[in-house]
Amino acid sequence: MDFSELGEFGFIDWIRCSYPSSSPSVIKGIGDDAAVLSFSNDLVLLITTDQLIEGFHFRLGETDGEKLGRKALAVNLSDIAAMGGYPIGYTVSLGIPSKRIPFDFVDSFYRGLTALGEMIGVELLGGDTSESGDRLFISITLLGKALKNKVVYRAGGQEGDLIYVSGWLGEAALGFHLLEKGISKKGKENIFFRYLCPIPRVKEGQLLAEKNLPRAMIDISDGLLADLNHLLEQSGLGAEIELSRLPLSPDFQLWTKEYGFDPLSLALEGGEDYELLFCVAPEKSKEVEKLSQEVSLPFTCIGKLIRGTKGIWIKDAKGVIAPVLPKGYNHFKSR
Amino acid sequence: MDFSELGEFGFIDWIRCSYPSSSPSVIKGIGDDAAVLSFSNDLVLLITTDQLIEGFHFRLGETDGEKLGRKALAVNLSDIAAMGGYPIGYTVSLGIPSKRIPFDFVDSFYRGLTALGEMIGVELLGGDTSESGDRLFISITLLGKALKNKVVYRAGGQEGDLIYVSGWLGEAALGFHLLEKGISKKGKENIFFRYLCPIPRVKEGQLLAEKNLPRAMIDISDGLLADLNHLLEQSGLGAEIELSRLPLSPDFQLWTKEYGFDPLSLALEGGEDYELLFCVAPEKSKEVEKLSQEVSLPFTCIGKLIRGTKGIWIKDAKGVIAPVLPKGYNHFKSR
Repeated sequence: MDFSELGEFGFIDWIRCSYPSSSPSVIKGIGDDAAVLSFSNDLVLLITTDQLIEGFHFRLGETDGEKLGRKALAVNLSDIAAMGGYPIGYTVSLGIPSKRIPFDFVDSFYRGLTALGEMIGVELLGGDTSESGDRLFISITLLGKALKNKVVYRAGGQEGDLIYVSGWLGEAALGFHLLEKGISKKGKENIFFRYLCPIPRVKEGQLLAEKNLPRAMIDISDGLLADLNHLLEQSGLGAEIELSRLPLSPDFQLWTKEYGFDPLSLALEGGEDYELLFCVAPEKSKEVEKLSQEVSLPFTCIGKLIRGTKGIWIKDAKGVIAPVLPKGYNHFKSR
Repeated sequence: MDFSELGEFGFIDWIRCSYPSSSPSVIKGIGDDAAVLSFSNDLVLLITTDQLIEGFHFRLGETDGEKLGRKALAVNLSDIAAMGGYPIGYTVSLGIPSKRIPFDFVDSFYRGLTALGEMIGVELLGGDTSESGDRLFISITLLGKALKNKVVYRAGGQEGDLIYVSGWLGEAALGFHLLEKGISKKGKENIFFRYLCPIPRVKEGQLLAEKNLPRAMIDISDGLLADLNHLLEQSGLGAEIELSRLPLSPDFQLWTKEYGFDPLSLALEGGEDYELLFCVAPEKSKEVEKLSQEVSLPFTCIGKLIRGTKGIWIKDAKGVIAPVLPKGYNHFKSR
């Protein structure tokens, strides 16, 4: 066996199958946005970890310390949001190439990190720092809590459920590609911001869960198709997505056209949007739309869960339905 | 400001002072072996993070996957042990140079990790894996719990308290130096094992705390003097250590002599012993000795806490007392 055969998700499956949790206090171990632990009669503890490695998740020339700090926490907050949870506090492991990275950069990293933390009400609890030689290595572990009967998992979707997505798709991936091409940020700061400094949908995830709206939920980190596929695998269902319904912002449409990117490919496979993807019983669609207005963020119905066929089926503008592969970012695999 | 001025501990102090926790649910944030969070009326949650970075904390040619996995978890377990806590579960961030490190190595890493986890009764809860290019990065975050009134902190020692240390000192540092010199492991496997695969004193920490014996406790990761100094800073006291009382095993004495190492320097400054260092009221010394017999591990009184003078004072075999600098391992600083 080697890593390029397995890929990131094959590797995670391998760990999950090789080392299943045996303790009754582990309600959900590996294989969801966060692990869920029984802690008291009605409360559960949530825990999630995400790392950012220089050269693979970010490049120093493309961001600054403050944005990187915000992003490192945001990607973890997004996982707690996808469970409908309330983040509590986090630890930070930093491997610092101290000969190359100035103290000021790390100073602004902590400023960004803690500024977002304060905004959300989540505490810096501790961490570990060491010399790392060449690459900046960041790993954050975030704790959260939730009422046991309000936690939303990737599993739980049912046939006919409507599939919703929060916010807009593809902008983070567009920001990434514009940066790669060295295109000026002027006039498109919002697009770059979506990649460099995503806003986790914490409040939205909590409100959705409180109102018992989603039967299944995940955040979009690897790409819409890849993450929808993770959700489908856990629910044992397929999905039909209507291309014409994908929420694409006017700016996104403008700049993809201007620079010759395929908007659908970015929206479907791009990744790093950190939006919420969730499945709702059809009779609750009115409530979802009402909540969307209350939080001033679009929740867009992009399709539905289907039985009898696995995987994802795409309906194009002409009504033609075809299966797609759930492509997205996958460490260890060439794309 | 730069990293070499601050050093690892100056950097941690800088974070602690710049970003103090503000939530009443954080009983102890940065600055102890683990953070302590209020979670229910009588229970607290403990959380700690420790990373191992290739080239700085280990070299692949000197260990194997299984030992590395055990050590990565052990150093975290040792932090929970030093609070008198009960470990629950852990997450693992792995940055893997997948072109260089074979899958078998990572397989055996997880085998070692989970074997120690099972022995202690602690669950693998999740993690994150990605490509890291050149170095293997490991960061583990461990959760634990404890009764609120049983947690032992670094602070709390009182004048006249006896200072105890578990097990033996200096062996891990000796193992490290023997490895560095390429000296054969034959006949000294136990010494190498102490460096490559330390045994965390989890049960011992729990029993000490249950019986309300230590008023302050820390684990020895950076070296006896450095860690004692961390404890003293929190208690606002000084310490007097008697050299003749340091627990040095016969094997340790044999091999330091054979290979020309200064045993006292290794025992005082070596680091990575992962033994417990704790302070006990003199009237409880009999109880400590009784517990030591019950767990079949020496708890050795090596000195006492003193008031009126800060820092560490060493009494040598002739009874001469002199102050020492708390040297030990310190990332970002040249030694």
